[in-house]
Amino acid sequence: MPLMQNLGYYNGTVDTIENMRIPMTDRACWFGDGVYEAAHARNHCIFALDEHLDRLYRGAQALEINMPISKHKLANLLNTLVTRVVGSGESAEQFVYWQVTRGSQPLRSHNFPVGLEGNLWITIEPRAIDPIDMPIKAITAADTRHLHCNIKTLNLIPSVMAIHAASASGCDEAILHRDGVVTECAHSNVHILQKGILRTHPADHLILPGIARAHLIAACERLGIPVDEHPFTVRELMNADEILITSSGSFCQRVERVDGQQVGGEAPDLLQALQKDLISEYLRETNVIKAS
Amino acid sequence: MPLMQNLGYYNGTVDTIENMRIPMTDRACWFGDGVYEAAHARNHCIFALDEHLDRLYRGAQALEINMPISKHKLANLLNTLVTRVVGSGESAEQFVYWQVTRGSQPLRSHNFPVGLEGNLWITIEPRAIDPIDMPIKAITAADTRHLHCNIKTLNLIPSVMAIHAASASGCDEAILHRDGVVTECAHSNVHILQKGILRTHPADHLILPGIARAHLIAACERLGIPVDEHPFTVRELMNADEILITSSGSFCQRVERVDGQQVGGEAPDLLQALQKDLISEYLRETNVIKAS
Repeated sequence: MPLMQNLGYYNGTVDTIENMRIPMTDRACWFGDGVYEAAHARNHCIFALDEHLDRLYRGAQALEINMPISKHKLANLLNTLVTRVVGSGESAEQFVYWQVTRGSQPLRSHNFPVGLEGNLWITIEPRAIDPIDMPIKAITAADTRHLHCNIKTLNLIPSVMAIHAASASGCDEAILHRDGVVTECAHSNVHILQKGILRTHPADHLILPGIARAHLIAACERLGIPVDEHPFTVRELMNADEILITSSGSFCQRVERVDGQQVGGEAPDLLQALQKDLISEYLRETNVIKAS
Repeated sequence: MPLMQNLGYYNGTVDTIENMRIPMTDRACWFGDGVYEAAHARNHCIFALDEHLDRLYRGAQALEINMPISKHKLANLLNTLVTRVVGSGESAEQFVYWQVTRGSQPLRSHNFPVGLEGNLWITIEPRAIDPIDMPIKAITAADTRHLHCNIKTLNLIPSVMAIHAASASGCDEAILHRDGVVTECAHSNVHILQKGILRTHPADHLILPGIARAHLIAACERLGIPVDEHPFTVRELMNADEILITSSGSFCQRVERVDGQQVGGEAPDLLQALQKDLISEYLRETNVIKAS
């Protein structure tokens, strides 16, 4: 069977993403009522899959969404589907996205029946991770999001608008803050290196507990870099030795400009040691070529 | 042509709601990226349609969503479609819902191209308005929503969860507050009558500028009831002469219990005068039988 150029999946039906149709009655359509995960695959190996699945099931539980499939079966399904799609470059890198929405109801109603079964959506497409050594530019913006940021929901309009504002300023990310206290970015976590210490917002309801953030903290532990999980201010950010963002799509990139000002660049050795550690882990963990 | 039992519409395609399929690439599916309106029709006449359309276009503009149709043409389309669907009861009451999402993109990306054309969704189903003289029960809950509540977006998970919590307590609504200051309900506005004055949260970014709220304020003016648009606290709510909720699905109902405590009931004449004025307006404005 030839590999597909990309793949869309909905409750057992498979086609290309552009051909997929889903019922209008899915609660995603009316309420953005679902949780999602996004990861990268290389050599048809999905990086940190167990951690992504754990977070998805935790989020679904918090929102009382009934998962339509066991964690083990979903892992098998994802691992199988990535083998049916082409990847980017020699090591076949892919962007693997999946979401579970609360289910379908014939008539729109905010409330939902307790036993409603969730709907499973998957998309897979060829996409390489962003180069880890490519510095990025950011704006700062008010964090106007809801107070459930620890759950990876489909309610993403404030993030969409923040990324759009960043893009309009020629930037890649928006660093969000609540009254001057930095939380995270529109689609990544943000951290600073200051005097040899990594500072990062605690994993409370104001930020997503990023998988890449957890890997950064683990890398710090391996390299003997102390980690301080307390909030920092925009002012501390601007004066930091280095500003780092982490996400499953870029692992760990340096921020070189914020609101047009040059920032960081004062601890390049520490930064590069972290980046090297993280990219090595990715390459090592995805080095097994699976049967397709 | 026989009338349909309900109607779903997507970018020109019509079928029953349960048969409608939409592209997986619509940004509603990934980001809840759209704005909506909901109104009632009677005798195939959509009540307060112009006000709903004005709010939709304002919301779309605020989010830089490109409307795929002019306001005039959308009004004509909605007015035509309601004639193709059965209604509830003798005066054929209908729930008319429509949303515009930001558009479709083959690959998921937070950012969007400036010229992307929005997608138009419509559903129409038979549904009577809630009886205006039926008192309701409510819980109080923390308002954990984003800070763009003036825009009627599809990012509705916090409202969904608040309604679900209300329902689990045998209640109909959740009265939301930020640090003890009442904002609005999960899917209606809330007001109090105190010493002959109507108090209601100002129409800022913390509440939806409800169409039914505007009609309530107009009714107060007609009846000589002063209106004070300043926030009030949960404590003031609990001690109010009357608590009222307004929405396009119920116009103006009295709240009789909050968190299990009996509330209001101290200004029944004023309350009923307002309800009578509002329901008369609805009946008068929708009394023209249109050709089907």
